[in-house]
Amino acid sequence: MNVKGTRDIYGDEARKKKEVELRVASIFEKWGFEPLYTPALEYLDLLKGKYGSEEKLIYEFQDKSGNWLGLKYDQTVPLARFVAEKDVPLPYKRYVIDRAWRYDNPQRGRYREFTQCDIDIVGPKSISADAEVIACAYEVYKSLGIDTVFKISSRKWLNNVLGNPDNKVLRAIDKYYKIGEEEVKKLIGEDKLERLKNTGPDQELNTLFNLLNKYKVKYEFDPFIVRGLDYYTGVVWEVYAGGLNLSIGGGGRYDNLIKRAGTPIPATGMAIGLSRMLELAEIKTVKPVFLAVIDREKAIEAANYLRNYFPIDMDTTDNPLRKQMEYANKKSYRWVIIVGDNITIKDMESGKQQIVTLDSVPKVIKL
Amino acid sequence: MNVKGTRDIYGDEARKKKEVELRVASIFEKWGFEPLYTPALEYLDLLKGKYGSEEKLIYEFQDKSGNWLGLKYDQTVPLARFVAEKDVPLPYKRYVIDRAWRYDNPQRGRYREFTQCDIDIVGPKSISADAEVIACAYEVYKSLGIDTVFKISSRKWLNNVLGNPDNKVLRAIDKYYKIGEEEVKKLIGEDKLERLKNTGPDQELNTLFNLLNKYKVKYEFDPFIVRGLDYYTGVVWEVYAGGLNLSIGGGGRYDNLIKRAGTPIPATGMAIGLSRMLELAEIKTVKPVFLAVIDREKAIEAANYLRNYFPIDMDTTDNPLRKQMEYANKKSYRWVIIVGDNITIKDMESGKQQIVTLDSVPKVIKL
Repeated sequence: MNVKGTRDIYGDEARKKKEVELRVASIFEKWGFEPLYTPALEYLDLLKGKYGSEEKLIYEFQDKSGNWLGLKYDQTVPLARFVAEKDVPLPYKRYVIDRAWRYDNPQRGRYREFTQCDIDIVGPKSISADAEVIACAYEVYKSLGIDTVFKISSRKWLNNVLGNPDNKVLRAIDKYYKIGEEEVKKLIGEDKLERLKNTGPDQELNTLFNLLNKYKVKYEFDPFIVRGLDYYTGVVWEVYAGGLNLSIGGGGRYDNLIKRAGTPIPATGMAIGLSRMLELAEIKTVKPVFLAVIDREKAIEAANYLRNYFPIDMDTTDNPLRKQMEYANKKSYRWVIIVGDNITIKDMESGKQQIVTLDSVPKVIKL
Repeated sequence: MNVKGTRDIYGDEARKKKEVELRVASIFEKWGFEPLYTPALEYLDLLKGKYGSEEKLIYEFQDKSGNWLGLKYDQTVPLARFVAEKDVPLPYKRYVIDRAWRYDNPQRGRYREFTQCDIDIVGPKSISADAEVIACAYEVYKSLGIDTVFKISSRKWLNNVLGNPDNKVLRAIDKYYKIGEEEVKKLIGEDKLERLKNTGPDQELNTLFNLLNKYKVKYEFDPFIVRGLDYYTGVVWEVYAGGLNLSIGGGGRYDNLIKRAGTPIPATGMAIGLSRMLELAEIKTVKPVFLAVIDREKAIEAANYLRNYFPIDMDTTDNPLRKQMEYANKKSYRWVIIVGDNITIKDMESGKQQIVTLDSVPKVIKL
């Protein structure tokens, strides 16, 4: 049995996950972000006091020596630890595709263990860095065939418009798309609501929007974007996919989270949730060709050759051919190559089969 | 501070890890293995009783509801759970590249959190499956420029030769390459030692060796290979890299670990440790080209174009050019493109620079 809120990913879904992660990483790299791997475990002290009321969801425990540890709750606080301790040149631009853990209430499409694809730029205080993060993420979604709008606001702007609202007010606004305008009005009052709706973006936001135009990003100014976590200090954004009233990613600026030798280092970044991408991405994955074995020695020779052209799942059961074909059928493989005295290709879709020479196989089968 | 026995991987080492994982996965797929993702957390009950004396090293704890959980200790027991519960067609061939956790004594190159690249074939009892696993792993090492020998024995063979030896004897033989022949002789007696050295491989091993010849795998029969874990039942092997007296991977057959509705399902597989591969692999990774910004709008246009050709790390600081060049230097980037009224390419190795048109940049810079 799986631990509650966790799951196995296998079959075609696993192939898709693999392919999506590959593409996401390759776009992050295209934009000059480099990989950073941080451990699953952190000392609990590091995680505490960073996430506000959400930190009750941290998986925490004592190890065999009595140290308090926690499973990482996001990719941002481990990044902050890393940059504070290691002498990496700034700006530091890293990406990560890794899991995080939250002891949350499991819901449809929401797990206690989940994968995040994050990019962050540490060092620059310039809005150019926020623009670069947003533009890179926009290309990630686009490359997967996911139509998005980036809804953008700013904690700084919010603080100015509402006169440093407390956490209660911020959390109420943050729920705008869940509970609706009337409910928010009840929670924060008509006056604050009207001010939010009628105040335009500030100069920093306008500079950002100007850069995003150059990058050809689709965005909207949205005064109701807050982001839940405590560590944001500047621009914040959420990503909405066409038609869905559901955030599929988000991020923002957090200038006070990282302190190197006591000095704060500005930073900005975002997290893209993988499971929503898996649901929405339109991509094709490749299944292996099945190599059915009558003569194993000849089959090994054929496999050695054909693996240069496509993935080969060769029989390892020594079962009779009929059983081997049943397997190929259950796996929904389209192509079967039967290796005995002859080499036969069978197209499982059309049922057609033909006898061929080994070197003509790659000409007949196109995956 | 990192949790003891864990570490961050960054910079060129992270690039190398990324590249090695990509290549390993692509070879696993070429051999028809499909990806399977299992969670980091398992119910502790599942992990207990599988690893013998090693199971004292499991990271275990109670979650907020009082359930006992453990971090996965290897990739094999989670696979066994998966196959027992899910109705996947057999043979089931999966690969996984994921972390495992052991509360072990950290040593050079040995961590409490480490990455394993595993392949397994579940279903066939035929030695053909063992051969396929070994041959696939052999190609993985070869593709990374790592010269290996697979040292192979068999638990079945050992049991026959020594008349079902107890765990104490097995563990003594397993230490042969650590403590030497004299020490093993003291522990198991001259008689048993001589029998091991003078008994040739059995028929099953000879069948395996014959297949491995077909695959062109470099292997040796080695009577002192046992493998530590309790779950092995048949053929076992360890991989040694040229010159190193150190196992860099290993595996074997475990026919009793997986039980579907009470019925045992045969299986075989192996784990390749990633950190040793990282030390030994001879591969080149690509660093980004740095795009220094004088005119940001023009720079964004140039980046939009050039990212089709190579990874671009564009300045996001708005710092003066001198500071931007210092950054490129600290990052050991070879190529810098400066975008202002003109486009200038600077080769940081030779110090040479030239003014070019945007579309000629990909002709000048070859990564």
